[in-house]
Amino acid sequence: MTDAASNGAEEDETITYRAIGTLHSPHGSTTGMPIQPTGARGINGHITIFPEFAAGLKDLDGFSHVIILYHLHRVHGHDLLVKPFLDTQTHGIFSTRSPKRPNPIGLSVLELRGVQGARVLLSNVDILDGTPVLDIKPYVPGFDVWPAERTGWFEGKVENATTCKADDRFA
Amino acid sequence: MTDAASNGAEEDETITYRAIGTLHSPHGSTTGMPIQPTGARGINGHITIFPEFAAGLKDLDGFSHVIILYHLHRVHGHDLLVKPFLDTQTHGIFSTRSPKRPNPIGLSVLELRGVQGARVLLSNVDILDGTPVLDIKPYVPGFDVWPAERTGWFEGKVENATTCKADDRFA
Repeated sequence: MTDAASNGAEEDETITYRAIGTLHSPHGSTTGMPIQPTGARGINGHITIFPEFAAGLKDLDGFSHVIILYHLHRVHGHDLLVKPFLDTQTHGIFSTRSPKRPNPIGLSVLELRGVQGARVLLSNVDILDGTPVLDIKPYVPGFDVWPAERTGWFEGKVENATTCKADDRFA
Repeated sequence: MTDAASNGAEEDETITYRAIGTLHSPHGSTTGMPIQPTGARGINGHITIFPEFAAGLKDLDGFSHVIILYHLHRVHGHDLLVKPFLDTQTHGIFSTRSPKRPNPIGLSVLELRGVQGARVLLSNVDILDGTPVLDIKPYVPGFDVWPAERTGWFEGKVENATTCKADDRFA
């Protein structure tokens, strides 16, 4: 018995979620869209939260930034080794932010412009129009900012995300 | 037709994931465990990645910190209004980091101690033993660190997470 089997998750276990709302953005196609919020500065979008979840937005408007978790719904299948947009070398999927992941969950830290009823107004949006949103968490630097000493293959390449656009390699 | 219905996610859509591995930690019970990595400094744990996904770990060892997304498997049901561990007031679930969320996905930025085969060695672990892991992403400050001007009700309370322990309120 492996330690994975002895306690907790099983390989064949399925985990089922439902969208809490839909993200709307000017990005109608993966090709040509920004690959990170740093490449999407000033691009506005919003989440329409489904009515049954809207009460959960109370006090969110006190935050300047939020973490959005979303389902990368246009991704089908996954690759364990990928050539990410920012490099010409192949890396393991878990050392990249590429979308074609075993569980295609996207994560973006976005600027919160406000909350209007069930509508969450965002900026720096690097997310495809129509994307199902899984969760909204407040961004709290005291929890989420750490002094990373090493950023692996990203070193010297992070700045390129401000101009690099996606192509269709993960479609 | 609402704009949510016209494009993208439907309210009744289900999204299915599978664990990529299991997290092992000294935290055998939610009661008394740290509520954030800032309260778990020096506490080691590891993820055992299922063999079929292990190739995706290539080059992860170049990073000092990783973002772990995980399924809060002991949480059943959700609350839209919660009294979080760090406050005596009630807040909307999406303005808190409380676990009893519509989609119980946990997020922790952890220190990476190394990768040994299919085992990912971590520190500052605030995650329950046996937790199914959904995704590992490299922590890249150039993408993940933003100058948050406002942190809502957390202001003046973030430091308390270094000592505050969980109780059974979300069990």
